[in-house]
Amino acid sequence: MSVGPSKGRLSLLVLGVLMISPLTKAQEQQPLYLMPAAASVQIGTGRLVVDSKFSVGLTGYTEPRLNRAIERFLRQLSRQTAIPLATKPGATAKAVLVIHTDHTSKEIQEVGEDESYILEVTTAGARLSAPTPLGTLHGLQTFLQLVEVSPDGFAAPAVTINDKPRFPWRGLMIDSARHFVPLDVLKRNIDGLEAVKMNVFHWHLSENQGFRVESKKFPKLHEMGSDGLYYTQEEIHDLIEYARDRGIRVVPEFDVPGHSTAWFVGYPELASGPGPYEIERKWGVFDPAFDPTTEKTYKFLDQFFAEMAKLFPDHFFHVGGDEVNGKQWDANSKIQEFIKVHNLKNNAGLQSYFNKRLEPIVSKHGKSMVGWDEVLDPTLPKDIVIQSWRGPDSLAAAAKQGFRGILSNGYYLDLGWPAARHYAVDPLSGAAANLSQEEKARILGGESCMWAEYTNPENIDSRIWPRNAAIAERLWSPREVMDAAAMHTRMEALANRLEWLGLTHKSYHRQMLQRIAGPSTPEEFAALSTLSSVVEPVKDYTREETATAEPTSTTPLNRLVDAVPLESTSARHFGELVDKFIAVSCHDSAAGTRLRAQLTAWRDNDAKLQPLAQRSFLVKEVSATSQDLSALGTIGLAALDFVAKGQRAPDDWNAQQLAVIQQIQKPKGQLLLMPVSAIQKLVKAASTGGECSSTNLEQ
Amino acid sequence: MSVGPSKGRLSLLVLGVLMISPLTKAQEQQPLYLMPAAASVQIGTGRLVVDSKFSVGLTGYTEPRLNRAIERFLRQLSRQTAIPLATKPGATAKAVLVIHTDHTSKEIQEVGEDESYILEVTTAGARLSAPTPLGTLHGLQTFLQLVEVSPDGFAAPAVTINDKPRFPWRGLMIDSARHFVPLDVLKRNIDGLEAVKMNVFHWHLSENQGFRVESKKFPKLHEMGSDGLYYTQEEIHDLIEYARDRGIRVVPEFDVPGHSTAWFVGYPELASGPGPYEIERKWGVFDPAFDPTTEKTYKFLDQFFAEMAKLFPDHFFHVGGDEVNGKQWDANSKIQEFIKVHNLKNNAGLQSYFNKRLEPIVSKHGKSMVGWDEVLDPTLPKDIVIQSWRGPDSLAAAAKQGFRGILSNGYYLDLGWPAARHYAVDPLSGAAANLSQEEKARILGGESCMWAEYTNPENIDSRIWPRNAAIAERLWSPREVMDAAAMHTRMEALANRLEWLGLTHKSYHRQMLQRIAGPSTPEEFAALSTLSSVVEPVKDYTREETATAEPTSTTPLNRLVDAVPLESTSARHFGELVDKFIAVSCHDSAAGTRLRAQLTAWRDNDAKLQPLAQRSFLVKEVSATSQDLSALGTIGLAALDFVAKGQRAPDDWNAQQLAVIQQIQKPKGQLLLMPVSAIQKLVKAASTGGECSSTNLEQ
Repeated sequence: MSVGPSKGRLSLLVLGVLMISPLTKAQEQQPLYLMPAAASVQIGTGRLVVDSKFSVGLTGYTEPRLNRAIERFLRQLSRQTAIPLATKPGATAKAVLVIHTDHTSKEIQEVGEDESYILEVTTAGARLSAPTPLGTLHGLQTFLQLVEVSPDGFAAPAVTINDKPRFPWRGLMIDSARHFVPLDVLKRNIDGLEAVKMNVFHWHLSENQGFRVESKKFPKLHEMGSDGLYYTQEEIHDLIEYARDRGIRVVPEFDVPGHSTAWFVGYPELASGPGPYEIERKWGVFDPAFDPTTEKTYKFLDQFFAEMAKLFPDHFFHVGGDEVNGKQWDANSKIQEFIKVHNLKNNAGLQSYFNKRLEPIVSKHGKSMVGWDEVLDPTLPKDIVIQSWRGPDSLAAAAKQGFRGILSNGYYLDLGWPAARHYAVDPLSGAAANLSQEEKARILGGESCMWAEYTNPENIDSRIWPRNAAIAERLWSPREVMDAAAMHTRMEALANRLEWLGLTHKSYHRQMLQRIAGPSTPEEFAALSTLSSVVEPVKDYTREETATAEPTSTTPLNRLVDAVPLESTSARHFGELVDKFIAVSCHDSAAGTRLRAQLTAWRDNDAKLQPLAQRSFLVKEVSATSQDLSALGTIGLAALDFVAKGQRAPDDWNAQQLAVIQQIQKPKGQLLLMPVSAIQKLVKAASTGGECSSTNLEQ
Repeated sequence: MSVGPSKGRLSLLVLGVLMISPLTKAQEQQPLYLMPAAASVQIGTGRLVVDSKFSVGLTGYTEPRLNRAIERFLRQLSRQTAIPLATKPGATAKAVLVIHTDHTSKEIQEVGEDESYILEVTTAGARLSAPTPLGTLHGLQTFLQLVEVSPDGFAAPAVTINDKPRFPWRGLMIDSARHFVPLDVLKRNIDGLEAVKMNVFHWHLSENQGFRVESKKFPKLHEMGSDGLYYTQEEIHDLIEYARDRGIRVVPEFDVPGHSTAWFVGYPELASGPGPYEIERKWGVFDPAFDPTTEKTYKFLDQFFAEMAKLFPDHFFHVGGDEVNGKQWDANSKIQEFIKVHNLKNNAGLQSYFNKRLEPIVSKHGKSMVGWDEVLDPTLPKDIVIQSWRGPDSLAAAAKQGFRGILSNGYYLDLGWPAARHYAVDPLSGAAANLSQEEKARILGGESCMWAEYTNPENIDSRIWPRNAAIAERLWSPREVMDAAAMHTRMEALANRLEWLGLTHKSYHRQMLQRIAGPSTPEEFAALSTLSSVVEPVKDYTREETATAEPTSTTPLNRLVDAVPLESTSARHFGELVDKFIAVSCHDSAAGTRLRAQLTAWRDNDAKLQPLAQRSFLVKEVSATSQDLSALGTIGLAALDFVAKGQRAPDDWNAQQLAVIQQIQKPKGQLLLMPVSAIQKLVKAASTGGECSSTNLEQ
């Protein structure tokens, strides 16, 4: 079956929200909300109603996984619609949705298997066909995204979708070492990955702050290195099955030789410095590292990897390799002597030696080694895969040398970037754009990364979702799909939809605000909500820098900075409104009216919040930010008045306001007030006057 | 240990939100939010800070259940505060909270065991002491309710609480037969019961619409009578242990001789009419009933009860006995002949005969029989317990005859009554108020009832909580605790707190609204939220009457009527504001300003909602209600204008508005617009003019 992008079809449709073109009935002009956008979409006429008679039939190749997938699909459809549905596949003849799978996929899922599918929906029924179960799984998710409330009940629009991924490796890494992530939290996030057609869960399992896997061979690893917070082998096996059912590979990472303090609590003899060791509680890069000069290290890793290679069936095995600061190596004369004797030049040479010793061990157990940029060494076999946290140039360089790579630079979810910024990062951009076709093919895709210094089970979903969907789309959809506004519209719809999977990225928020507020009046709580809706945590790595006390793994994550989403939807909408208002020179009085209402609410918000600040230390902490929001409201209103009256604001007024805004721009309580730049624009607009009459804004 | 209510202490404090009386520091004037209110509270000075050093020590009697309770308590405290805490009890010497339990409680929890406790909190530490683990469990819940965010961190106020329940039987019945309730949903609700100190979970397990228990003796009961939705004996055992850990008895109910269609699917020979039978899908009272004239019935029930009596350890065994319509008995000549021969007079006599045959069977298996009002017969042993759905007079009559009783009339959560109405219902009111002390002692307490025609796992929590807390308080707290406004304040705080248990009574709402709305702009969604915040489902049993299509157990519960809470907090707050405004003859300009803002928002809401109504049939359904809200806003604003200007509204204007409001009062889409009565009040206020000048309201 050929499922390549169908040129000549309405390929432009995929560039954004897919508007249904000329239809007769008004109620049929509903857009599609597919995320990731499909490779090719052809819109039909009418809708397929989904009601209690909905059923699924299975033809062609079948396997238990497909039956389970259909049960899950029907349960999920039932959840989305609240229509009770039988959850077993029925007779094909009567089925509303007929599914045909050609043949099996690999027993252990491989990189680059055929994941394509074709989904045809008409008013009479639907047909999903795919070469392998992997495509079938993706097609089912697409169908779920098509079903929406309509004027006549729940329904999917008539459509023909011909879809396949752009990259074969589309992953999410979760760091379950710095803060332990319970299994149910991982599972619901894997459900999320399935929904956005990602196919790799990269599991970061060991760190200075914790060793999270039960080892039967070396039980002191988890017994002494985890505070009791680790996954049993049975749980891991269960999770891998769970992921496989969803078309998702599980790649384990055991980070060596650095990031390894927790290993040494039980096995100090492997370290380069003298023990004893304790589980690290702070964040950062630490000194402990494996001793690459002793055979004990390789014997240990050989036996440990043997155990893990059996536990994790995936062909790829991640050994980390990042951020060795070399201090323990420097301080150890035996190690320095080793470097000299073996002519390794320096610590980098020693790490390279370590990797060259490590690779055959990984290989011996039937795996291909994956490592962060640091493991790259031209003399290593081309079998290894480089995961790049450094950037696309590093990745392109590796590809040129014949190594495969995946991009993570630009996809770090913990840095708090807006979705649109992640969305703009392309694995084949920068130096990679100039690679040959053969070299490009070595860039397998990418992985978003969720590092866990400031996440716990309560807020981790909100740190991953919905922004991860933008990265998923970048890795699945055709390169031309890149309109950020359209992506946002679909991402907001997806964010709601993901809640049916049990993800808590939306629901956690009010509960955390309740904790911060304590018992409060509706007005007080609304004021806290308003403030929380326009702030974001400080970006990149500035949280450590701006901390008043050094954060550790036991620091309570109960502050507003922990409770707010990493991207403010309200602030983004406000910014769009200001742009619209300014672009039309305030002839859009509706925009002006809405701006005025919003600015007034902000101006008056602090007075409502102050009683809470008297009662709660967690509100008190953001009191200054609340006052700043109030000031922003006042400035914005004044600017709006100038523009509305068509007056040019005096230069000194202007300078004064911009100076105030500059002060407000500085983070307080580790929070940024996001409307700042839009208010700046308003003030600048006021400085040039405007062409509008006051009647546009004043009613 | 004597823990009777301490007269002479600040007993008036328990009448409402417990305000801390003259204190020097402003930040210490925070009220207590205990629910149920404690029997006696003495406020101290200062606060006990709860931080990561918090620990618990256990002295006196210990048992594994207490250790588990402390682990749960610490986990819960950690959840409330997000402070990581070790979850094991530590050394008593260093413990911040020291717990002392005198002695064991009964192996199988009994009615009337000592549940008292004393909790003393000072700035230096806390001490909880109780005669039995049951009191300890309650005291731990009280401590959790004391801990709140403060100006200096999380803390509990210094206080001495001397507490015990007013009634020994404080229960919630959940009907898991009409709609199956998954185990995890039951468990989180049992957590809720523990939080409000209820001690009985009454499990309604069989109905016309489903038989929900695995029977090894008669497997066709669950195999043919449950659609596969039943609890295994292992799950039931697990749930009973779960409840026992929380000081909660589990009383099973197998409803006979009526409400029994699902039994007859597998065993038609037990019915009074000819089979075959199918699981009932509709709601109401149905004809099928056990045949009381055949020995097969008693033999079957004897064997089945033998199995169930072993499975459910509680001393009480509920046999239902309600609502036999007698049609199958009338139609069966053999049965009518039996009535004649045995001189039973009529069907009531026959049911009485049935009960008299049933009671010895229940008794033989070591249990006391519980039944609804209908089982009451003076000739039955005094051992039985009457659960009254008919009312307090029925209960008092039973008590006079020497029977024990529990009240459920007035506590039906599914009827949609406001919390304050349930709160006003007292088991010792009406005829019961005139009983002797001895007779009064036979009234053991009460049970709220959650009948499940219109609940599913998605909305059931919201049907139970937080209103169930008002009933819990009625049954625990001293009779004098009856101020509804104070109850509401505490109930709203509790409602937030209950979310930490995983109850979804708040979080479910937005998700159901999202389903109703489909993809929408923030403005559209806000409009739907606003409408949803001021409507309630029709009350009592009018939902069947007003249905456009006959509802069944497979009807999707996805409409706005299924999504909104049964009591609108917004409407109640609005009503209070109107009362305040009118009471002070609109001299309260702040109230006037807020009223105007609210009414304006309502007036303008429909225009924002209409685009959604074009796209979603579920919004379309409430379109008329939305227009009505808009009309209410307009009327309210006009009335406010009259009052504000001190003008008397013309009589014909007045009559016209009241006529419109009367139309609006009629339910549409099975929803009631709750602000109606408050708007009526405003219109009436307008008709008398007012003393305020326009400056009060207009700015």
